[in-house]
Amino acid sequence: MAHNADKELETKEMATRSLSSAQCQVQNSTYIHKVGVPPKQKFFNEFTSAVKETFFADDPLRHFKDQTKSRKIILGMQAVFPILEWAQSYNLSKFRGDLIAGLTIASLCIPQDIGYSKLANLQPQYGLYSSFVPPLIYAFMGSSRDIAIGPVAVVSLLLGTLLQNEIDPTKNAAEYLRLAFTATFFAGITQAALGFLRLGFLIDFLSHAAVVGFMAGAAITIALQQLKGFLGIKKFTKKTDIISVMHSVFGSAHHGGKKNKKLFWVPAIAPLISVILSTFFVFITHAEKQGVQIVNHIEKGINPVSVNQIYFTGDNLLKGFRIGVVTGVIALTEAVAIGRTFAAMKDYQLDGNKEMVAIGVMNIVGSMTSCYVATGSFSRSAVNYMSGCQTAVSNIVMSFIVFLTLKFITPLFKYTPNAILSSIIISAVIGLIDFKAAILIWKIDKFDFIACMGAFFGVVFASVEIGLLVAVSISFAKILLQVTRPRTAILGRIPMTNVYRNIQQYPEATKVPGVLIVRVDSAIYFSNSNYIKERMLRWLTDEEELLKAAYLPKIQFLIVEMSPVIDIDTSGIQALEELHQSLHKRDVRLVLANPGQVVLDKLHTSNFASLIGEDKIFLTVADAVVTCSPKSEDEV
Amino acid sequence: MAHNADKELETKEMATRSLSSAQCQVQNSTYIHKVGVPPKQKFFNEFTSAVKETFFADDPLRHFKDQTKSRKIILGMQAVFPILEWAQSYNLSKFRGDLIAGLTIASLCIPQDIGYSKLANLQPQYGLYSSFVPPLIYAFMGSSRDIAIGPVAVVSLLLGTLLQNEIDPTKNAAEYLRLAFTATFFAGITQAALGFLRLGFLIDFLSHAAVVGFMAGAAITIALQQLKGFLGIKKFTKKTDIISVMHSVFGSAHHGGKKNKKLFWVPAIAPLISVILSTFFVFITHAEKQGVQIVNHIEKGINPVSVNQIYFTGDNLLKGFRIGVVTGVIALTEAVAIGRTFAAMKDYQLDGNKEMVAIGVMNIVGSMTSCYVATGSFSRSAVNYMSGCQTAVSNIVMSFIVFLTLKFITPLFKYTPNAILSSIIISAVIGLIDFKAAILIWKIDKFDFIACMGAFFGVVFASVEIGLLVAVSISFAKILLQVTRPRTAILGRIPMTNVYRNIQQYPEATKVPGVLIVRVDSAIYFSNSNYIKERMLRWLTDEEELLKAAYLPKIQFLIVEMSPVIDIDTSGIQALEELHQSLHKRDVRLVLANPGQVVLDKLHTSNFASLIGEDKIFLTVADAVVTCSPKSEDEV
Repeated sequence: MAHNADKELETKEMATRSLSSAQCQVQNSTYIHKVGVPPKQKFFNEFTSAVKETFFADDPLRHFKDQTKSRKIILGMQAVFPILEWAQSYNLSKFRGDLIAGLTIASLCIPQDIGYSKLANLQPQYGLYSSFVPPLIYAFMGSSRDIAIGPVAVVSLLLGTLLQNEIDPTKNAAEYLRLAFTATFFAGITQAALGFLRLGFLIDFLSHAAVVGFMAGAAITIALQQLKGFLGIKKFTKKTDIISVMHSVFGSAHHGGKKNKKLFWVPAIAPLISVILSTFFVFITHAEKQGVQIVNHIEKGINPVSVNQIYFTGDNLLKGFRIGVVTGVIALTEAVAIGRTFAAMKDYQLDGNKEMVAIGVMNIVGSMTSCYVATGSFSRSAVNYMSGCQTAVSNIVMSFIVFLTLKFITPLFKYTPNAILSSIIISAVIGLIDFKAAILIWKIDKFDFIACMGAFFGVVFASVEIGLLVAVSISFAKILLQVTRPRTAILGRIPMTNVYRNIQQYPEATKVPGVLIVRVDSAIYFSNSNYIKERMLRWLTDEEELLKAAYLPKIQFLIVEMSPVIDIDTSGIQALEELHQSLHKRDVRLVLANPGQVVLDKLHTSNFASLIGEDKIFLTVADAVVTCSPKSEDEV
Repeated sequence: MAHNADKELETKEMATRSLSSAQCQVQNSTYIHKVGVPPKQKFFNEFTSAVKETFFADDPLRHFKDQTKSRKIILGMQAVFPILEWAQSYNLSKFRGDLIAGLTIASLCIPQDIGYSKLANLQPQYGLYSSFVPPLIYAFMGSSRDIAIGPVAVVSLLLGTLLQNEIDPTKNAAEYLRLAFTATFFAGITQAALGFLRLGFLIDFLSHAAVVGFMAGAAITIALQQLKGFLGIKKFTKKTDIISVMHSVFGSAHHGGKKNKKLFWVPAIAPLISVILSTFFVFITHAEKQGVQIVNHIEKGINPVSVNQIYFTGDNLLKGFRIGVVTGVIALTEAVAIGRTFAAMKDYQLDGNKEMVAIGVMNIVGSMTSCYVATGSFSRSAVNYMSGCQTAVSNIVMSFIVFLTLKFITPLFKYTPNAILSSIIISAVIGLIDFKAAILIWKIDKFDFIACMGAFFGVVFASVEIGLLVAVSISFAKILLQVTRPRTAILGRIPMTNVYRNIQQYPEATKVPGVLIVRVDSAIYFSNSNYIKERMLRWLTDEEELLKAAYLPKIQFLIVEMSPVIDIDTSGIQALEELHQSLHKRDVRLVLANPGQVVLDKLHTSNFASLIGEDKIFLTVADAVVTCSPKSEDEV
């Protein structure tokens, strides 16, 4: 049926083909091309291809095609443990890079870990534990070459806040710890499940702008918290000097590192040196007796087993699950963002879903070995990259150094002043405030900026959960608003061409007499179908009033440029039918230009195509104009 | 800056202009047109125009422009009370139509009202009350000419279900009634607020498909409920005959009415006749003494004042508010759908927001005069339309008949058997099951069909609330999924034209050697930017593998057709930058064709345009191909 109609269309077009004087195409019999009606796809094919594109967009099994069975097993093992693949080409020169990078990030992570575990209301050794087991697991299963794994400030704060809403960390320390492991376990389960079920795209719903605002808000919150601790030592005049000197040394080194890329190692190792020096000074002066707060106790030895501590039943299971899901998703967002950034910089492929499984498994194993939620750290990953890391071996090196630290030297941290840890945390989190990104967001998209600020103020003035909620809500609202109120534009012909464009963007474009050309810039769905219909009628009314005032001929054809209309649903078809009806009463004909494959299919299925006439659907606006302009009507 | 770059671009284009032999344009110096860079809009202008398009898309104040002050007052009054406008041209011939229609819908509404109030667990007179006051208010404030106002089955069921979750209607009848008025009050407030704040577009988020499924599910639920009552009389053999005869008479009349449009009044008055006849038979045979359940008691007299019964404080305020919001929105959806359908059929404009205010005010006043939630009824509006109603006067006529009924004859309904009411309800709700729409939805959009079935089974097997929740969730999921996984297509040139189209839709389209042309069918947002980037790289990889296998020259240019890309955000720009970087490493140049006004603006603001080179942005794909094809490179 459709084919017959098309032939008819073609014949009709040919008759009118040579009429337009403005046309400048070759005089060829195929000039007005018929609109392609693709062969109808079966529902099953349509459905499977939609599922494939949604969940397996990266075609993860493509390498497995046409391989022998043993080869498939090897490829399968390599898919789960990428280390099996890249270890084959590992060499000494790569190890040199990884060794230096590993040592550098180890020196940065040790003081950070001790500080961050305080944000999670945990004892200092738990931060170090989390920098020992998870990086090892990641090195075997992860595919990013630059990410540095371990506890991070924002996730530690989020976990600490959520946990202490449920259990008091000072009164019920043991129960609190158990809930922390439970949450970590479920964070890992959530992450691995998202990857395994190929639902990784869900984290894309946290927009970049929202993350920027959230991170900055969390950074400010943490910094203010730490500053309180940091300024708390003011009254102890004796030690203040040393610490403020330390801090200023550290600060300027940090600054120096930013200016000169070759000096990147100065801020990287400054924290450890500050810790060593300040610990030494406290030790020899016994400042803790004058009230300088110190770490006081830090357990020696490597991670004890904690699998028996996880709550698998009761009320705490649910609490742990809920907290785990939230922290797991936030941790994942951070890790994936870091992975993607560095993969793009070094131009290697990163399989998002595989990454999530790796991070999930590392947290599941972590929860069984006294670790709390670990993920990729912004600051340490950047240092790792700048120190010339080549592979995930740098994480193994770091893990080994942390192991040595836990095994032999943790007791020495007893005299480390809390103030120096606070200053290390402050200096690390300040880096999370990305002013440049915020300014760029303001410039590019005001709505994004509102999402960014919403998340920021939500975190700063309410809480991390509220900030997160605000960020996600605004991000969703943006998508929904855009779907509800799509843009429409009046098109005109650009002089001396056959190209029709928005007359607002191209003021030199001219309207065609008797014809109104409207472009709809969105899929036509239930959420906007009514708006689109009414907007088009309003364009028509406005135009007719103008024409009437100027005594010009009235509009006879409304051409709807459908190129951007990528899909249409039942409500959309209904709206088009209503539009056709209203136009009919006004003596205006509805004409469609360039509907896509999917849309054309649905126009035929719903009989809308035969309602307006198959000959009213054209390949391009130019073709439609040739047929519709009053001139051709006179001559026919 | 942008202007200089554009000039440069133009000059460069002109140099390459005459190279392409496939071109068939006039040899005119403006042939390759520069890409329009519109004057940058101030943030304030941009923001106000966005707000205007979102909330005042219909430009409600357009009639007030350039009018005298007194005229403005008249126009303002007419805007609030449309009756002031249409009453001026009201005449006897219109009244004849309205009188007949009003009498017909009154005869239909009286038995329906008595039945529906049972669905809401209220005494029969409350249904009649709700057909007296609200239609009067609507007649003054509403702008639909065909809608018939009063209680409806689905809203009655929904209200009854939600209310009895909170208060037992048999044990605490007084409290239950008070909560019903409170819910009605807040339903009205919600409706009026949505209209007044011009947030009417929010109800567009309930998709047509979801509403079809929800209505059918509610109809089945109500029918089964009533059937239980209807079959409950089986054991009372004496009366069964009369009633089943009544029912079959009524049923066949209904059927006859559907077949012949002139007999529409047969199903319309059949219910009232059934009620009168069955009531008469029960009265003379005293069947109620043999156990036939009858209405038994129905209060005489018009609506008592109930404003003092509304809960304005305490726990019940919150409950009433919550129930009111849900029922108010559902009632509004029904009213707006009816209003729009008939407005489209008779081709008159309906201001959605004004309608909402009218319906909201009528429910607020209703809640103070012993009415429960009223809205537009599908069945009665259709009868109203078919009986030849002209204006809202038919509602006034109906209201007057209901007034007379309440005032004088309600006691006569005492002997009406419940079974006849059940059969009237069943026959009314069966009409809500729209098989045709469901089949069309299945044909057009499988995802819509899932939403439809989800709502249907949710209502039938769980509850009205669950069904509603399922419907809304699936509708949202559809939008979000579409935003996450937009379509991309490879374009080829349609022979003998300069038109580039999807090679899947137009198999005769040919690829250009050395150039890959990809079209992105969506705005590029945070939710899809990564997917789009990776999908484009995968198209490129696939294509390069094919070319390699065939020993053809490799791809040098990736042309991205941006026509459907209606917007881009910061994440989108970042993804384009990463794409540019990846392409650069593969020795492929990124070229953009026809970016829209908004996108172009953002490409400039973010300096992406100068990153890829202003001369890599073209007005059409054809222009881009001319410049990029290897041929032109040889010759330059």
